[in-house]
Amino acid sequence: MTAVAFIGLGNMGGPMAANLVKSGHDVTVFDLVDDAVKRAVASGATAGTSAVDAVKDADVIITMLPAAKHVDTLYLGDDGILNAAKPDALFIDSSTIDAETAKRVGGHVVATNRLFVDAPVSGGTAGAQAGTLTFIMGGNTEAIERATPILSCMGKNLFHAGATGAGQIAKICNNMLLAVLMSGTSEALQMAINNGIDPSVMSDIMLQSSGCNWTLEKYNPCPGVMENVPSSKEYEGGFMVKLMNKDLNLAMDTAAQSGSPTPMAAAAQALYRIHEAKGNEDKDFSSIFTLLEK
Amino acid sequence: MTAVAFIGLGNMGGPMAANLVKSGHDVTVFDLVDDAVKRAVASGATAGTSAVDAVKDADVIITMLPAAKHVDTLYLGDDGILNAAKPDALFIDSSTIDAETAKRVGGHVVATNRLFVDAPVSGGTAGAQAGTLTFIMGGNTEAIERATPILSCMGKNLFHAGATGAGQIAKICNNMLLAVLMSGTSEALQMAINNGIDPSVMSDIMLQSSGCNWTLEKYNPCPGVMENVPSSKEYEGGFMVKLMNKDLNLAMDTAAQSGSPTPMAAAAQALYRIHEAKGNEDKDFSSIFTLLEK
Amino acid sequence: MTAVAFIGLGNMGGPMAANLVKSGHDVTVFDLVDDAVKRAVASGATAGTSAVDAVKDADVIITMLPAAKHVDTLYLGDDGILNAAKPDALFIDSSTIDAETAKRVGGHVVATNRLFVDAPVSGGTAGAQAGTLTFIMGGNTEAIERATPILSCMGKNLFHAGATGAGQIAKICNNMLLAVLMSGTSEALQMAINNGIDPSVMSDIMLQSSGCNWTLEKYNPCPGVMENVPSSKEYEGGFMVKLMNKDLNLAMDTAAQSGSPTPMAAAAQALYRIHEAKGNEDKDFSSIFTLLEK
Amino acid sequence: MTAVAFIGLGNMGGPMAANLVKSGHDVTVFDLVDDAVKRAVASGATAGTSAVDAVKDADVIITMLPAAKHVDTLYLGDDGILNAAKPDALFIDSSTIDAETAKRVGGHVVATNRLFVDAPVSGGTAGAQAGTLTFIMGGNTEAIERATPILSCMGKNLFHAGATGAGQIAKICNNMLLAVLMSGTSEALQMAINNGIDPSVMSDIMLQSSGCNWTLEKYNPCPGVMENVPSSKEYEGGFMVKLMNKDLNLAMDTAAQSGSPTPMAAAAQALYRIHEAKGNEDKDFSSIFTLLEK
Repeated sequence: MTAVAFIGLGNMGGPMAANLVKSGHDVTVFDLVDDAVKRAVASGATAGTSAVDAVKDADVIITMLPAAKHVDTLYLGDDGILNAAKPDALFIDSSTIDAETAKRVGGHVVATNRLFVDAPVSGGTAGAQAGTLTFIMGGNTEAIERATPILSCMGKNLFHAGATGAGQIAKICNNMLLAVLMSGTSEALQMAINNGIDPSVMSDIMLQSSGCNWTLEKYNPCPGVMENVPSSKEYEGGFMVKLMNKDLNLAMDTAAQSGSPTPMAAAAQALYRIHEAKGNEDKDFSSIFTLLEK
Repeated sequence: MTAVAFIGLGNMGGPMAANLVKSGHDVTVFDLVDDAVKRAVASGATAGTSAVDAVKDADVIITMLPAAKHVDTLYLGDDGILNAAKPDALFIDSSTIDAETAKRVGGHVVATNRLFVDAPVSGGTAGAQAGTLTFIMGGNTEAIERATPILSCMGKNLFHAGATGAGQIAKICNNMLLAVLMSGTSEALQMAINNGIDPSVMSDIMLQSSGCNWTLEKYNPCPGVMENVPSSKEYEGGFMVKLMNKDLNLAMDTAAQSGSPTPMAAAAQALYRIHEAKGNEDKDFSSIFTLLEK
Repeated sequence: MTAVAFIGLGNMGGPMAANLVKSGHDVTVFDLVDDAVKRAVASGATAGTSAVDAVKDADVIITMLPAAKHVDTLYLGDDGILNAAKPDALFIDSSTIDAETAKRVGGHVVATNRLFVDAPVSGGTAGAQAGTLTFIMGGNTEAIERATPILSCMGKNLFHAGATGAGQIAKICNNMLLAVLMSGTSEALQMAINNGIDPSVMSDIMLQSSGCNWTLEKYNPCPGVMENVPSSKEYEGGFMVKLMNKDLNLAMDTAAQSGSPTPMAAAAQALYRIHEAKGNEDKDFSSIFTLLEK
Repeated sequence: MTAVAFIGLGNMGGPMAANLVKSGHDVTVFDLVDDAVKRAVASGATAGTSAVDAVKDADVIITMLPAAKHVDTLYLGDDGILNAAKPDALFIDSSTIDAETAKRVGGHVVATNRLFVDAPVSGGTAGAQAGTLTFIMGGNTEAIERATPILSCMGKNLFHAGATGAGQIAKICNNMLLAVLMSGTSEALQMAINNGIDPSVMSDIMLQSSGCNWTLEKYNPCPGVMENVPSSKEYEGGFMVKLMNKDLNLAMDTAAQSGSPTPMAAAAQALYRIHEAKGNEDKDFSSIFTLLEK
């Protein structure tokens, strides 16, 4: 049993904290939204009166926040948790933010002789609830070793991408490629349809050929080809267009900072930007299929 | 045992005809290159003195030619095989050509009350030799039923994409997507490398995440990540850049004829065109990785 | 006074033939549409009973047809004008077609020891009526010299781009660039608008800076910035989206045949293809501005 | 005569300050590089001992710095000029930075009841020396009115783009379009060349047609077409590839912040990123022509 502090109890953080409790850990939580704290307490967590209060006795501190500026303020602000935590606390940030901020915040943690892991997740709210998230971790070996048993309570795939910040970078590389796969698969299916080929048949052919990819296997963008995916539910639920655009913006920032040519992701981003500008921000990202429809 | 005529004995057609012989069929062959005919005879085929001579007693006629103009001339030219064949012969064209030509030639065959299947292949020369090609077939049900036992002697995956021409279209849709997958995977790996992440680690992460695709599974473009793929053999062998460009040209023709938006393939084609213009036409198509290298 | 035959009396060809009559030439016309012929006769031309009849006594033959297949048939068909014309007739084709067809047809003309000029036009129906068209000519010096006084009756700018086919290629290079200018200018204006900048002010700034281009000078795509352009008339009239797509298809064919990388035109084509697929085929091509609107 | 402080005396700022002196203003300067200060003093300026010292008696303060972080620190840092300046001083920032920083810094200035103008320039070092720069200004009317006579000593075209930050945005919109014009013009010229057309002839045709744009008029990217442009001097001098990439990064940030689709600039950025990655960072930006060369 470890004393864990969990800050940020949204759609992802809430069920993640609950899974830590279920695994037998002693979890103290905080969120600016009272109801979120109440739900966590109902699932067995202890409420902190503030972030600083929540972390003060924790051995492991997990943060799950909406954006980089929140992470920056929570860790490094005047009333930040960095100063409030125990001298040997391990910090794990599971927010999806830019790598620069992750490296900078992680650097401040390391400067106090403590350990830091950036560990963004994939798997969505369903994965958070089921405890089957994927964590992509950045940090030194000692930090990763200490983080692993804790994160294993919430996820089933854990990857060590590299040094501090590498978790964020690896996640964004993957999601950038996902946008390319979804856009490319959509245009191939639409061209098949425009030429009289059944999209289910075309999907089957590509699944067993060199066009095979995750979107065909798990997330076909053409309505009616697969059951229980957003495309067969009018593109509701899933991973929203505006979140894909947020990730593509992070990816393009990373590309700019590292001088990396990303022509394919740039083309995909142009499509997602147009798609959002036309009012589709809350639809699932597989709805890019409809932008390419004739 | 069926009487089969096989016209076009190149790197693909030669071993395909040999596999038909091995399966016990009575195979008569023709090619303009004498040596190719001699090799086929050595493997058990009978030499025709001309294309017309080769097809005259055949129940099934298979053609495997470099480009649309050759198919057009062989079938419909003054000395074409359409007039020379038996009244109930089945024609199978396994060349990779544009769908318009396939439909037009197929239409002429059907107008003579005979059956036609367009059946382009994937799997390369290795697949042709091993008899493990994939055939993507277009044609009516009767034609497909008659073609299936014959093509099964040369391939292990047979797909029925739709009506005449659908084989060509489905193949080009798949290969168009392949160009997108290869380019998108290459830029994601390069961005990871530019940010200090090991490409093998990044590949592992994406293989188990939403970026998973055929190029990561079978054909990693980064040297040293996989053995026995072109990227680990200085991009020799495999599927050459100039052939990918040929396929992308066919894909763009199909897109233009059907008014299909293909922004991702257009972006990939721009890269492959630049790559070929810089002298890489004979390298494997996974070498697009190097164009995106810093 | 020259005996001129004019075949093809559409929205462009009709007023062009009328301007030849006005300049004092003896003009014999033909078109498959009777009313078009009647209008030409009313303006002073003589009606031929067929294309072959129209050309038989002509010193100069001008053709203005919708697409390459019509040019091919008219010149080289069983009843083609090539055989019917006088031994020293000059052929001028002002249709906008692919360069390969222009070269092939021109080659057949030259093989009969006659002269051929490909001379596609720009300037639209307004330019055709006013006699202010631009002709971009391909052919040898002798052909260009003979064509110049005749074409000068219909246009004010005549360019000699190079050998046979070069007129078509130069025109398509220009129009390809036009699609890039229009798309790029539209996205720049939209980004300014999205950031609270008046598009008229932004246009003025770019007109006097390094962003200056023909679309800002003559054809601003933002409604209300310029009077009397399609954007201020709900994108009616002008050069339709479907015609821009036809030109972009010709450009991409030329790019493919010559192995030319055209990443910018490919990006513009993707936008125009999406725009047409969404039902905007008959709007002016400056309406691409609305696709990029937030 | 106005008391002007000028901070930042680099390749641009140095000659700009000298032109202010020539116009009769009383100019006090500061730069961290001693030699730059000495040159300014030699041209008639007075040296401040620090930035704070330089601005303390100034009525107008002009800053010309390399990047946003320098502007932020100079204005808002612990030892910033905002607190040191006179209560009615006018601040003009001519650095090229992101609009968010310009708005934020400008907001702090305005909060002290003083005036702020963001006024990035175009025209390069030649324009700075000749006093012919273009200033694109953002700020309220009163600020613009006070800035105008001062900026007129250094430039000949002054534009008022809109409120604070609009100067930066308008400049970046223009430069984003410039990247599109240069790339698009380069590919059109290369396609002409690949088809046997003389690039000078092609340039002349487009200059008088709808492809006309600033790069053809002032900065032809094809060697030998124009004299005294970087393309005819092995792409030396001019506006370096790495600076174009910096501007494109700023443009993409602005696009992301405002949700603006910029597909054409994204395609151009992909090319410039590849071009820089291949070692061309110090060449003139018109050298993108060579990336598209066959």
